[in-house]
Amino acid sequence: MEAEIICVGTELLLGDIVNTNAQYLSQQLAMLGISVMHQHVVGDNAHRLRELVRQAMQRSQLLIFSGGLGPTADDLTKETVAQAFGDPLHFDEEEWAKITAHFARTHRPITENNRKQAMVPTHGHKLVNDRGTAPGCWFENETCCAALMPGVPHEMKAMWQLQVLPVLLKKQNCALHSMTLRVLGGESQIESQVSDLLANANPTAAIYCKTGECEIRITAKAADDAAAQAMCRDYSKNFYSRLGTSIYDADVPGLEYTVVHALQQRGLTVATAESLTGGTVAQRLTAVPGASSVLGFGYVTYSEKAKQQLLGVPAEIIERYNVVSAPVAARMALGAKQASGADIAVSLTGLAGPDGGTEQLPLGTVYVGAAMGNRVWVKHLTLGYRGREIVRQRSAVQALDMVRRLALGLEIPEARCFAADTPAQEQVF
Amino acid sequence: MEAEIICVGTELLLGDIVNTNAQYLSQQLAMLGISVMHQHVVGDNAHRLRELVRQAMQRSQLLIFSGGLGPTADDLTKETVAQAFGDPLHFDEEEWAKITAHFARTHRPITENNRKQAMVPTHGHKLVNDRGTAPGCWFENETCCAALMPGVPHEMKAMWQLQVLPVLLKKQNCALHSMTLRVLGGESQIESQVSDLLANANPTAAIYCKTGECEIRITAKAADDAAAQAMCRDYSKNFYSRLGTSIYDADVPGLEYTVVHALQQRGLTVATAESLTGGTVAQRLTAVPGASSVLGFGYVTYSEKAKQQLLGVPAEIIERYNVVSAPVAARMALGAKQASGADIAVSLTGLAGPDGGTEQLPLGTVYVGAAMGNRVWVKHLTLGYRGREIVRQRSAVQALDMVRRLALGLEIPEARCFAADTPAQEQVF
Repeated sequence: MEAEIICVGTELLLGDIVNTNAQYLSQQLAMLGISVMHQHVVGDNAHRLRELVRQAMQRSQLLIFSGGLGPTADDLTKETVAQAFGDPLHFDEEEWAKITAHFARTHRPITENNRKQAMVPTHGHKLVNDRGTAPGCWFENETCCAALMPGVPHEMKAMWQLQVLPVLLKKQNCALHSMTLRVLGGESQIESQVSDLLANANPTAAIYCKTGECEIRITAKAADDAAAQAMCRDYSKNFYSRLGTSIYDADVPGLEYTVVHALQQRGLTVATAESLTGGTVAQRLTAVPGASSVLGFGYVTYSEKAKQQLLGVPAEIIERYNVVSAPVAARMALGAKQASGADIAVSLTGLAGPDGGTEQLPLGTVYVGAAMGNRVWVKHLTLGYRGREIVRQRSAVQALDMVRRLALGLEIPEARCFAADTPAQEQVF
Repeated sequence: MEAEIICVGTELLLGDIVNTNAQYLSQQLAMLGISVMHQHVVGDNAHRLRELVRQAMQRSQLLIFSGGLGPTADDLTKETVAQAFGDPLHFDEEEWAKITAHFARTHRPITENNRKQAMVPTHGHKLVNDRGTAPGCWFENETCCAALMPGVPHEMKAMWQLQVLPVLLKKQNCALHSMTLRVLGGESQIESQVSDLLANANPTAAIYCKTGECEIRITAKAADDAAAQAMCRDYSKNFYSRLGTSIYDADVPGLEYTVVHALQQRGLTVATAESLTGGTVAQRLTAVPGASSVLGFGYVTYSEKAKQQLLGVPAEIIERYNVVSAPVAARMALGAKQASGADIAVSLTGLAGPDGGTEQLPLGTVYVGAAMGNRVWVKHLTLGYRGREIVRQRSAVQALDMVRRLALGLEIPEARCFAADTPAQEQVF
């Protein structure tokens, strides 16, 4: 089956907003195995829209619309498509009651225009809008189907999930399930380990890159949801066996959620001591609802004085080894652990740029420390410089991962481990 | 002049990436006063592409392409458009030398395929690519022009700015200048104050909403750049006279830049004391290069114990007035100022949700404190609940703005000001 996505809206043509609806719908159709051949954006021009619909109906079997369902005379998507499908619209009392109730609730006057929004297909059917006033429409003839949805993204997504997707799944006589693995590392590095697994027909697997990590999305199509779920689970084992503990979790919003949950499960607490990242790690951890059960204290020790005063890093160690060094990272973590009384403390010191790099300490040089029990781990990162925020974000990911690994009792790859009382000169690397 | 934007790329049709190129090009064309009638996304299908180009050339006078300039046999945008314009491509030695040098530098083998990238128009001209290997193309006949650019966003933008935009400006015999005002507040509130100013023909002005603030982009078209600049500057005065100090800056990446620069100019330092926002304010300030000259200390005092231990907030004040209260915000700010020795300290305490709201203290209740000299200001925000991160981000904006206002000696609207030694019971509001 071939599909086209048609987004109607002047705000898209003016560049006021980015077309996230087209991306979302493309992803969803790809998961269904439906090929998207065209994405279009058009304004509210009757002639152009009519011409486009005519051509699309000749080329493709499925047309997905978003936008153009508003109440003004300009909004003519519904009328144009109804005409193309030869399906007369009629006035739906139930929808009209919903619309009038909405206006009453929001104390706005209702006008005759708004009646337009209550018009629905006669041979096709309406698509209920849970999140807004305008219902969507489903039109169908022998060769082509069309779904018309609102342009507001959250209204469109809800309608897609609850009204359109079930119809398409039923047409294909199948169910769909997705699972997202979250993996630490760069895209090229991960891709080289799993490239053959990304070329599968069902389940499909695709990789998406983020700063310091990647998502692998596995999608299975099967007769029912349980079977699709089982296929995803089975196929995911291939990734786990290749990537091991680099996969930090599945189906979570981000690494900070995994870290907070791991700490909660083990009854552990964490403190942060951030120079380089200036609060990024604390900010990410506290973004998780319920984070207060695991994080009480965070230190942003941007100056040397703050490192001395809040974390007890001796001035002579900063002086002798440089503030960006393994001994300083170790002492920051140990100091934060002691001052806060937390079970684990994590620290960061490094050069985010854009200025301040030297040959010995180029931009992107970072030391991450983590203290637990009477030991401290230090990891040396050489991230290079591709922007200040990229250095900071990638470092924060590494710090969060060290906390995860300590909480779960996992090894910390590429880190050195020292006893808490190791002299500074033995920690230099 | 009417234009169409044509983006070529399977990754767009699969929804792997969002089409930011279409938005960027639409904005740019809108600034030029050129109407974008269609945005299209198509894959590398010769027949469909040919058909689309044929139609677009009939309808519109300007076609802007991105993507499809790669070296493989699939990449046929250039060949298709050249044919439609009747402009034979020829091999360009200079481009070929650049391509071979690039491959040599990156130690990759060059193949016969890559010669395709060195083909350029004969009647039209090539568009130099500063950022990558593939040159772009300009085709032109009596009724229509076409610019072909790479799909990689930073390559496309550089080519647009340096190669395409000058040609279009020359065709229109004019220059373009833009300026972006940054304004604190919500879109509807700001828009109601300036709606008539947004309906101007030249300069144009458009408003874009972000969390807790808006951008107003003013764009003027004039005979030369100096005149366009002067028009922007003059028109901006209308906004300043309506919005006053809500406009925090012009042409800066964000509020944290304005704050850091204001502190630097006045030779002041700042410390942060964050509960609610868990490090967000410190993270934003330290995102600015050179922030270390103004920020040395930040405290993430998420637990009550941390507020007591690091900031000296008395337990009985937390107990009596609640941790989310004006007296606690005041003491957090005063404590952070004293502990750090900074000139200004800012504090946040509040309920970000999703759990924990009560009738007396609903979610979105926030107190922001700021201490300077021997005074402390407290602002009470009632943000409601539209998501944990929205509450946190909007609160952070307010905190940054209080620092800006203190640094610049501006009034802090809607804040109460107290002497540092005001008893807690007189600070409750």
